[in-house]
Amino acid sequence: MDWTQKILEGDLRTVARMIRDIDDGLPEARAILKELFPHTGRAYVIGVTGSPGVGKSTLVDRMIQNLRARGKTVGVLAVDPTSPFSGGAILGDRIRMQRHSTDEGVFIRSMATRGHFGGLTPSTRGAIAVLDAMGKDYILVETVGVGQDEIEIVRAAHTTLIVLIPGMGDDIQAIKAGILEAGDVFVINKADREGAQKTRQELLTMIEMDKDRKTKGGWKPTIFMAEALKNQGVEDLMAGIEEHRAFLLKKDPHYLAEFQYYRARMELFDLVKQDVIGAIMEQLTQSGKWDEFVQDLVQKKTDPYSLSEEIIDRYLKDCRIPQ
Amino acid sequence: MDWTQKILEGDLRTVARMIRDIDDGLPEARAILKELFPHTGRAYVIGVTGSPGVGKSTLVDRMIQNLRARGKTVGVLAVDPTSPFSGGAILGDRIRMQRHSTDEGVFIRSMATRGHFGGLTPSTRGAIAVLDAMGKDYILVETVGVGQDEIEIVRAAHTTLIVLIPGMGDDIQAIKAGILEAGDVFVINKADREGAQKTRQELLTMIEMDKDRKTKGGWKPTIFMAEALKNQGVEDLMAGIEEHRAFLLKKDPHYLAEFQYYRARMELFDLVKQDVIGAIMEQLTQSGKWDEFVQDLVQKKTDPYSLSEEIIDRYLKDCRIPQ
Repeated sequence: MDWTQKILEGDLRTVARMIRDIDDGLPEARAILKELFPHTGRAYVIGVTGSPGVGKSTLVDRMIQNLRARGKTVGVLAVDPTSPFSGGAILGDRIRMQRHSTDEGVFIRSMATRGHFGGLTPSTRGAIAVLDAMGKDYILVETVGVGQDEIEIVRAAHTTLIVLIPGMGDDIQAIKAGILEAGDVFVINKADREGAQKTRQELLTMIEMDKDRKTKGGWKPTIFMAEALKNQGVEDLMAGIEEHRAFLLKKDPHYLAEFQYYRARMELFDLVKQDVIGAIMEQLTQSGKWDEFVQDLVQKKTDPYSLSEEIIDRYLKDCRIPQ
Repeated sequence: MDWTQKILEGDLRTVARMIRDIDDGLPEARAILKELFPHTGRAYVIGVTGSPGVGKSTLVDRMIQNLRARGKTVGVLAVDPTSPFSGGAILGDRIRMQRHSTDEGVFIRSMATRGHFGGLTPSTRGAIAVLDAMGKDYILVETVGVGQDEIEIVRAAHTTLIVLIPGMGDDIQAIKAGILEAGDVFVINKADREGAQKTRQELLTMIEMDKDRKTKGGWKPTIFMAEALKNQGVEDLMAGIEEHRAFLLKKDPHYLAEFQYYRARMELFDLVKQDVIGAIMEQLTQSGKWDEFVQDLVQKKTDPYSLSEEIIDRYLKDCRIPQ
């Protein structure tokens, strides 16, 4: 039986190998992803992001517990950005979720996202597609960090959950991160700590400031308080996520179409970016041109802008740099 | 007099407008950057990064003070990733550095990095080149956040300074960020807080684990303790940065060549990435093809992988996706 069929039937070993192959950037995985694509779109994807130390893994563990109690199957992807230096990801706290590893309704995988030229997003989307095709009802995607790449990853989610904790340094820390505007639902974890109400108030103010909410189809982001370690507030939070889901799926058919268009556009853009850069760099390095160009640059024989234009003239058809 | 000449002569208004134009992605800026390129390479670039709330701005303020006391001129770039949703950057704490605004030897600019298709790095490098060409001895580049993009930005630096604070949540928070491996010099700020020695010990352990240090030419990252608010520890830190500078410039001519090659390669790669994607997306959107493709994807008429391959066949010469 081929991999596609095995994945559709939920074969755990094949799914695990497939996600590893995607993570490793093996080209064979691509053909299978093509075949899986028509079988995707059923799962509900929740992105979970926030700074290191806010307790994302503990919270995800509680969310799994809640979904399982409601009879839902769950796929979890923990995405750790790879260091460009070591090539390795450190997944220490994955261990917390391992108590679900004997539950057949839960499938947990970490990705090191070794993504070569294009970043993490296409690999993450590929892995989401696999969990979707294998039949999981919910897919939780946990990211580490708060950079632009994490924003890209959460674009693949239906509901983006941002995890904060009270008073992390500056009062404006929350605002600075930029990623906050991506949040559909916020949770202030470790809410027993001092300053929880202050953080909540700051968030509320931010949300009120964003009157237009053009990108959210009118959805007003909601805020929940939780203590994931004690399993407090998780039920309310999950109800809040369901509320957002209901908003997306039922409230406004026009908005749903817009949302799907937006998601498809992002997916294609991220993939094209990866493929195009990969193809050009392959050609440049194979031909030895790349090394030549870099040497010219080191010796200041030319400037990077002229070199880049030369590359575009040489390898692109009918395209030029936008003026 | 033309802009290039004015920038080389240090004309503040022209420099400010030039950096704004780069930030806005104006194509006119590109021609000037080409002309400036031969005049760059003299300034010493220090990247300063760390999570929100660790006190980066206060520390940078103290670093400026220290450099000025040594008679050095300083350019500062504060790079805030733009939210893809609002298009704006929030630069609240820039205010702290403004006491230097009457000092002619200091030039401070924030960038919102509206970078279109390619990310923040080419814009940041462009702005660094401008400050370099205008004659600043030191350029401090402060980034917000700890994602992959910030790692890319710090690649433009000679010395990368990572700012931490004691006991931010998990013990392993430091390790998780990934960006740590990019650090040449570490500073534990707010070192009067509980747990400072513990954080230092964890860092030391990490550094010891990285025995090979292949990417750093044998440099063993150093750790300093500081309280930037009270101006404590800053002098030692600056001496530590000078030590790294001396290592780069004098110790090993082979390593310096390698370092310069690495920097040039990164610079060219980041720019090619931006230009190539920009050119292809321009062509795709102008021709109406892009909208057509996304609609096909929404309706599941095809899959993103096949579409991306179609785009490569259509717009790239002699290139294919690496197999």
